[in-house]
Amino acid sequence: MPSDLCRQMMGRTQLLLFFATVSWASSFQLAGKGGVTGFLGRRKAAQESTRLKGETHEFINPLNPGELTTHPGEEFRKQWEQIILSAQDKICNGISELEGGREFHEDVFQRPNNGGWGRTRVLQNGKVFEKGGVNVSIVKGHLPPGAARQMTSRGHTGLDPSRALEFYACGLSLVIHPHNPMAPTVHCNYRFFQLFDAETKQPLTWWFGGGTDLTPSYLFEEDAEYFHRTLKNVCDRHGEDKYPRFKRWCDEYFLIPHRGETRGVGGIFFDDFNEGGNPEVGKAFASECLDAFNEAYIPLVRKRMDSEFTPEQKEWQQLRRGRYVEFNLLYDRGTKFGLQTPDARYESILMSLPLTSRWEYQAPQGDVEGSWEQRTQQALKNPRDWIPIDDADLKNILERMNSRELQTA
Amino acid sequence: MPSDLCRQMMGRTQLLLFFATVSWASSFQLAGKGGVTGFLGRRKAAQESTRLKGETHEFINPLNPGELTTHPGEEFRKQWEQIILSAQDKICNGISELEGGREFHEDVFQRPNNGGWGRTRVLQNGKVFEKGGVNVSIVKGHLPPGAARQMTSRGHTGLDPSRALEFYACGLSLVIHPHNPMAPTVHCNYRFFQLFDAETKQPLTWWFGGGTDLTPSYLFEEDAEYFHRTLKNVCDRHGEDKYPRFKRWCDEYFLIPHRGETRGVGGIFFDDFNEGGNPEVGKAFASECLDAFNEAYIPLVRKRMDSEFTPEQKEWQQLRRGRYVEFNLLYDRGTKFGLQTPDARYESILMSLPLTSRWEYQAPQGDVEGSWEQRTQQALKNPRDWIPIDDADLKNILERMNSRELQTA
Repeated sequence: MPSDLCRQMMGRTQLLLFFATVSWASSFQLAGKGGVTGFLGRRKAAQESTRLKGETHEFINPLNPGELTTHPGEEFRKQWEQIILSAQDKICNGISELEGGREFHEDVFQRPNNGGWGRTRVLQNGKVFEKGGVNVSIVKGHLPPGAARQMTSRGHTGLDPSRALEFYACGLSLVIHPHNPMAPTVHCNYRFFQLFDAETKQPLTWWFGGGTDLTPSYLFEEDAEYFHRTLKNVCDRHGEDKYPRFKRWCDEYFLIPHRGETRGVGGIFFDDFNEGGNPEVGKAFASECLDAFNEAYIPLVRKRMDSEFTPEQKEWQQLRRGRYVEFNLLYDRGTKFGLQTPDARYESILMSLPLTSRWEYQAPQGDVEGSWEQRTQQALKNPRDWIPIDDADLKNILERMNSRELQTA
Repeated sequence: MPSDLCRQMMGRTQLLLFFATVSWASSFQLAGKGGVTGFLGRRKAAQESTRLKGETHEFINPLNPGELTTHPGEEFRKQWEQIILSAQDKICNGISELEGGREFHEDVFQRPNNGGWGRTRVLQNGKVFEKGGVNVSIVKGHLPPGAARQMTSRGHTGLDPSRALEFYACGLSLVIHPHNPMAPTVHCNYRFFQLFDAETKQPLTWWFGGGTDLTPSYLFEEDAEYFHRTLKNVCDRHGEDKYPRFKRWCDEYFLIPHRGETRGVGGIFFDDFNEGGNPEVGKAFASECLDAFNEAYIPLVRKRMDSEFTPEQKEWQQLRRGRYVEFNLLYDRGTKFGLQTPDARYESILMSLPLTSRWEYQAPQGDVEGSWEQRTQQALKNPRDWIPIDDADLKNILERMNSRELQTA
């Protein structure tokens, strides 16, 4: 039977589900300043199980197109592409080192109609990793009219709905699944988007999005704390509000509504990020997050990759992999966005799915009182603050956020 | 890289994907008489690869609410529930017999708020079957306002969009995955829907939907033919147009757009069925389809369940299971409909997922020239007419269909 939490959420997530795959749109506009969006429903549900519930009403306050005075040009985009490509090299090298030097298989592909290109790197059936994919894609093209309509009706009110749009998107996306059930799965994705008037080619708006999150099959509190601490250190260099906001957004985004549990122990997540109107700010933040990936993840794998485990623990990992698949195929906007892109390279998009997974009817493992499996599952049903933030600190952060909101309002 | 077919389809299915999870609505209105629906896009794509392409423009011509004069009452619904419950017994007995008498695990559950009940039966880790679920559910409740709006904007124009709606749905749904990669997976689902004015409790409209389809990992042409022949025999008793229409609809519905292949070798599929306005017609048809399930499927398993197979063949089966999961989680309206229902029992809904599955990056198996795997995949990329229908016969059938359309128009 679904948990009570799940029941509560089902009502609230109804609207979400109706909009869940309208994902071109929703990847542009995740948390508008108001209006009924599914995302708000989901956020509220997730917040109910956090210590911070109700303290903030918004995770982010994107500027509307009309408010943006600075528009990245060709040089900015090239710089970002270089950041992404270098990050791919660095991350792949870090992972390969754990594999004793075994390298990723690489596929470079061009998209038709001058639609960009991509560099997919996959490591499959390694010694340490069951499957890992680290992808770069640089995509250009027309926005389907439906997508543009949806987008403008849900925010970005400065966009003229009658104008055809073009988009540019460049990002890195990775998912890595180790063999050992004690070693966690990780996902990370950072991207830059820009929209143009299709006719005049004038830039209209831009934003950054991304995140890094951890999915252990078996919870090690100290690993979750270390991972969050590493991300928080990066965030703090860009404003003390960043970690608390993006940590909660992550818990909310990676919720599997029908199960009433998150995909993993979270990390950070943000989208629609153009605060202050200076694209250098987003670029610096996203590139430092990418840069911190190896530091956040690799020590955890090194610590756990040779752990002993039982066949039952391997089976639990396979069940958790099934939940991963559920989230990615039912709810993840990135996957849907990718599959909807014209001429989508589905092999690159679906590399996020684990090599093997399992679905058991009423699998008993998570229900055994006091078990490690149950303890892990509890941390998914009630997302924790892995780095406790002092109430006074939080109040100060929120006050500063609010005063900034007033300034920009 | 995606196949050319896939590329062609990606453009057309764009709109589909935007609407794909608006599924309360779309399960009510699958193929309206016109208008831009995702489903039409998908249909056209699938038709390009069938011999029958372009011969019919519609699979079905549902009557709008205002055109329906007969409305099933409590007695009709009870009769249908009895049909469904008896079918569940008969099918489970047939499957259990192959398992040497091992019985299904049964869970009877009540839905809260007088919202109906269900009887889930699952057989897991059997001798012959990896996992099989045969579910009955009888669901009542309010239609969320968004769902009603979506529905009325996509057909059913006789419904007043400002009125709150209630629904009744009763159906049987099964998915059975055998262990042996030579034995096919099967899915079957038949359901009756009814809508009411939430305030006056007056019935507004009703319809039947359903289908039976086969998903082999390894193609045996004679098995596919036998399966289709058995279904055609049932269909023919209810009108010679039924099989050709519902066979093509099945190929189209079970398309995995991003891969440009169907989930399996098809069978029959229909929805929104209220032709002629007499609910007894739909009830008789759906109940005979259910009744023919054992005859269509069980001989195929009996023939293949003890076949020899290699570890590589088992691995191919696991990859095909992955495709099954992709379809069910990304595209299947039944799954999404279920998960969106308030107080959804996700364990019952997700019993359709296989016990184990696999995703390999660029799995080579389907690309080996002349291999059985490639031959199987070809049958999924280009749905075949398993029962060749003579061109003259088809022309006659279509002419009769058209003249009937003119009469009802």
